[in-house]
Amino acid sequence: MAKQKPRTLSGFMELLPADQMKFERMAELLRRSYSLYGFTPLDTPIIEASEVLLAKAGGETEKQIYRFTKGDSDLSLRFDLTVPLAKYVALHYAELSFPFRRFQIGKVYRGERAQRGRFREFYQADIDVIGDGKLDIVNEAEIPAIIYHTFTALGLDNFQIRVNNRKVLNGFYAMLGLTDKAGDVMRTVDKLPKIGREKVRELLTGEDAALTENQADEILQFISITGCNKEVLNSLEEYRGRHELFDQGLDELSTVVKYLGDFGVPEEKFAVDLTIARGLDYYTGTVYETFMTDHPEIGSICSGGRYDNLAEYYTDKQLPGVGISIGLTRLFYVLEEQGYLNSALNTAPADVLILPMTGDLSPAIAFATRLRAAGIRAQLYTEPKKFKQKMAYADKLGVPFAAFLGEDEISQGKVSLKDMDSGEQKLLDPDTAAQAVLSALEEGRNAAPIREKK
Amino acid sequence: MAKQKPRTLSGFMELLPADQMKFERMAELLRRSYSLYGFTPLDTPIIEASEVLLAKAGGETEKQIYRFTKGDSDLSLRFDLTVPLAKYVALHYAELSFPFRRFQIGKVYRGERAQRGRFREFYQADIDVIGDGKLDIVNEAEIPAIIYHTFTALGLDNFQIRVNNRKVLNGFYAMLGLTDKAGDVMRTVDKLPKIGREKVRELLTGEDAALTENQADEILQFISITGCNKEVLNSLEEYRGRHELFDQGLDELSTVVKYLGDFGVPEEKFAVDLTIARGLDYYTGTVYETFMTDHPEIGSICSGGRYDNLAEYYTDKQLPGVGISIGLTRLFYVLEEQGYLNSALNTAPADVLILPMTGDLSPAIAFATRLRAAGIRAQLYTEPKKFKQKMAYADKLGVPFAAFLGEDEISQGKVSLKDMDSGEQKLLDPDTAAQAVLSALEEGRNAAPIREKK
Repeated sequence: MAKQKPRTLSGFMELLPADQMKFERMAELLRRSYSLYGFTPLDTPIIEASEVLLAKAGGETEKQIYRFTKGDSDLSLRFDLTVPLAKYVALHYAELSFPFRRFQIGKVYRGERAQRGRFREFYQADIDVIGDGKLDIVNEAEIPAIIYHTFTALGLDNFQIRVNNRKVLNGFYAMLGLTDKAGDVMRTVDKLPKIGREKVRELLTGEDAALTENQADEILQFISITGCNKEVLNSLEEYRGRHELFDQGLDELSTVVKYLGDFGVPEEKFAVDLTIARGLDYYTGTVYETFMTDHPEIGSICSGGRYDNLAEYYTDKQLPGVGISIGLTRLFYVLEEQGYLNSALNTAPADVLILPMTGDLSPAIAFATRLRAAGIRAQLYTEPKKFKQKMAYADKLGVPFAAFLGEDEISQGKVSLKDMDSGEQKLLDPDTAAQAVLSALEEGRNAAPIREKK
Repeated sequence: MAKQKPRTLSGFMELLPADQMKFERMAELLRRSYSLYGFTPLDTPIIEASEVLLAKAGGETEKQIYRFTKGDSDLSLRFDLTVPLAKYVALHYAELSFPFRRFQIGKVYRGERAQRGRFREFYQADIDVIGDGKLDIVNEAEIPAIIYHTFTALGLDNFQIRVNNRKVLNGFYAMLGLTDKAGDVMRTVDKLPKIGREKVRELLTGEDAALTENQADEILQFISITGCNKEVLNSLEEYRGRHELFDQGLDELSTVVKYLGDFGVPEEKFAVDLTIARGLDYYTGTVYETFMTDHPEIGSICSGGRYDNLAEYYTDKQLPGVGISIGLTRLFYVLEEQGYLNSALNTAPADVLILPMTGDLSPAIAFATRLRAAGIRAQLYTEPKKFKQKMAYADKLGVPFAAFLGEDEISQGKVSLKDMDSGEQKLLDPDTAAQAVLSALEEGRNAAPIREKK
């Protein structure tokens, strides 16, 4: 028969078993962490009606979207988890309790240009808190605090959450009479790290932006405000009283910084950073980006912010919220590239490979049942292979233990348990063997999936 | 602004939070159960190249598939998890260890005619064991044993796994010289429960099938073999020696029945049933279907079998395997329809809703941190609402506990913990409160997601 060459589409991550296990461990820790903060899991369809999904979208999104017809239906694959959330909340409004706290870990689709490290199918891991009419500012501090605790649980250490407030930025530009130009100016200012101070000044005062020298000076001075959080907030206080929106934003920023401390986030893990703006225009207050401090070139690995109107395209209800999103597939890719995935994590499909050495499998099956009852993952290996091949299989899988049941063991009601790492082999009764496995596994099981190089 | 009416496509399940929690609990138990048997989790793309995905498909599959182009690419959404597994194993053959045991719980897509209880996007939960060249028959007993243990862990009791062997069927038809007609005859015989014995005989001896009276008699006698497994196997023994394939199938069936006992599956939970054939022609040996004994009208909720050549469309490698699939979305729908979802399961997003009663949130945040460290899901409620509204929120979410931190509590370093079920409220120090919550949760947390009506 003619064969079809098997392949996986480029831009679609497909992991080998050991890597998949590491990915699962990360996803499991995210689910657990989000759950501890009272977020409920949500699962929405990957396909939506195009008119629903694209009610708001335009530009880049429309170009990248996977859109097609099936019968009479114009369908699209979701490109993020926020629009489906907006739809969900508008559709099920009457049946939900607000604040509504949900997490969702799911695949989204963007037909990006194929290149290394860019994915067309990727997981996002989102949390959002949605209020009905109003939403307390505490949530704007709790969200980055959750991210801090989650990354820490994953084993990530060298990261920093950078916080800003859109009202501070917009209020500042309003002070200068630059409200209409604020977007353009921010995009120019974004180029600072690349092109330097003088070039930015040239662009700002050039033909296109046409700012005065004085305006350009104020902007360059403003964005050069740095220091510890207290210093930055103190510098910002000097602008107080010049514009209401700015003052409101500064109050919010100060409150968020105070609560972040209460939530146990150490000072070095979050920084007020006036250069963080977030491109999306639906953010209205606090905004976040998260950087790996050893690898700023990777960009933000977790971003989000406060918005005033989640579902305005679907409903008149005012639904303010705050959320944050981890690009999980990209993060996993980066961690692997950097060698940051913890190799101490047990990625074998089983903890014990059971090798029956007799025709009668009953004792081996009974031992497997005993192990599973104790929560130990056990696999029976019954293929009629040579002993050497069986051990090669155990080695290749990376199982921590092998257990042999031959005539001798069975007649004594025991098993021979071999620690595959040390090579040590002991004749034990089944309960003691289960106990030994459990103790040995404790560490590897709870190992963090990430371990940064020192 | 003009609003877009939010809607979810018909045939796409989208659950409210409490139901989603029940679904997650089922999925989590499946993951756990499959893992205990040494299956590794796999995740393959939802989109594949059409020429890869449809290498084998035809007929019904082609019509139902979601197929579209994006740029120059002809793409399709997977319609099951078996074809992607075949692709995966063929593609990554050199990097896998055989037998390769994987589970996958993922969404698949079929553009079925929309009707109640039929889904176009649905979860399948599959396990498969793939051998390289050969695969021991023990796996054919272990697979249904895993299903037995999994359904039992889910809380399902009234179910039965029905087992047959295609070699027994094909061997039997070969005895009668009906090898070429076996497919048609089996389809006719399938109608027995609906149209009765005499009609089946008429069809078999009629113009289309054109069997002799003697052949029809033999068939009707064969399919009326019933009784306990031992009785059925004994009846089948009477056919031994008439055809090699039949004898081989009978040996396999007897072996599978013997091992199912060893694997701890009670006799009433599995039955040799000669009417089980499975439509798909790639099954070559043992086949399974699983029925809810109180609801046979629902049809099989978990089916599968043994195949000789998983990936023949992609590779010359002989890759025999055995697998089984749960249609999880449909099963969940049926369980809900029947009122079989356990209402004792804690489906609230949090175990404790913490209500700070003072301006300073620090003590409430500290208590939340304390609870989360103990694995308790805690939510801070900080919206400035009236007490009654806060309690209504707690009630609507169904949280088991509320905790109040007012001036009195804070000055004493305590919290008031209210059991929302009994209404009982106690003033406790934070550690004691955490302990009380943990003890109370134990039962609800480990509750099975399914509870059948008696």
